[in-house]
Amino acid sequence: MQLLKDRIRSEGRVMPGNILNVGSFLNQQVDIGLYNEIGKEFVRRFAGLSVTRIMTIEASGIGIACVTAQYFNAPVVFARKFRTKNIGGNLYSAQVTSYTHGIDYTITVPKDYLPQGGSVLLIDDFLANGCALEGLVLLCEAAGASIAGAGVVIEKGFQTGGKRLREKGIRLESLAVIERMDPEEGVVFGE
Amino acid sequence: MQLLKDRIRSEGRVMPGNILNVGSFLNQQVDIGLYNEIGKEFVRRFAGLSVTRIMTIEASGIGIACVTAQYFNAPVVFARKFRTKNIGGNLYSAQVTSYTHGIDYTITVPKDYLPQGGSVLLIDDFLANGCALEGLVLLCEAAGASIAGAGVVIEKGFQTGGKRLREKGIRLESLAVIERMDPEEGVVFGE
Repeated sequence: MQLLKDRIRSEGRVMPGNILNVGSFLNQQVDIGLYNEIGKEFVRRFAGLSVTRIMTIEASGIGIACVTAQYFNAPVVFARKFRTKNIGGNLYSAQVTSYTHGIDYTITVPKDYLPQGGSVLLIDDFLANGCALEGLVLLCEAAGASIAGAGVVIEKGFQTGGKRLREKGIRLESLAVIERMDPEEGVVFGE
Repeated sequence: MQLLKDRIRSEGRVMPGNILNVGSFLNQQVDIGLYNEIGKEFVRRFAGLSVTRIMTIEASGIGIACVTAQYFNAPVVFARKFRTKNIGGNLYSAQVTSYTHGIDYTITVPKDYLPQGGSVLLIDDFLANGCALEGLVLLCEAAGASIAGAGVVIEKGFQTGGKRLREKGIRLESLAVIERMDPEEGVVFGE
């Protein structure tokens, strides 16, 4: 998606430790026009698929998933990272490791929100080592819901998450795949 | 907002400890059509105001803020609850206490995303004791940004957050104000 790649090149900041900061337009400050274009692109790439739920994980995937859901006319459900008091006990859960934040956490979703037999499109802003999306896959498997596909805004192609998801047979569409990046050279896209 | 109140009555679950679970349509599973109606209602209530940023706090406010932002044609910025590795050090911060979760936390926003002289509309799903929104007010004050108003989907009118915000002179619009609630009687709306 050229619009996105141009934006990453002009505003993304590559920081030490393979961190790409796109907070100024994608995942902390949000260009809502860009979100709409991202939603339309996901619809184009997953055209013709039955989607009964758009699923993501808090926090920065939520906005992208909600704007995208308008184009699929499907409800959004998001997994929470910590169990909070105001959710009942009837939950699916999975363990996830965040390399970015250096922590392990549990993701949960109420069983009622992920019906058996549903067809789920997973959406997230980043795919690097893939653990968050793999956690969502585990929740869908536990629910007996099928995965229509996974739509990711930025994939770090030099990390292993995308490969592992594709090897599982999941149809993965990444709108920008980064082949390599460093603070000197900036971002180099694949494909 | 009648559509919202009807939905709270039919699907909201009042739980002990003044907790209202509206996760099935508002803040974990999302009815995107309702979000659009909420966005339109905020535009109607804040018509004519200059809004240069829509601001919220992670996580469940993000989707509402993003869908609402489409109607204001303004970027969204959200405050984060924990300082993460991939944000630089140039942050505004404020302390917030969550009574729902029984914890204190720090909220932060990069200074670049909250420009001096901006006109900010605060958006959140719930207002109870008001601490999250008051934290956002502190961030705006630190930035020298003015607050155009605060739009809340559900206000617990029997708690003190709304009163304190109004006493500060902030124009607060709550789409549903709960006068009282308990697991037996359900929800009773004010106004």
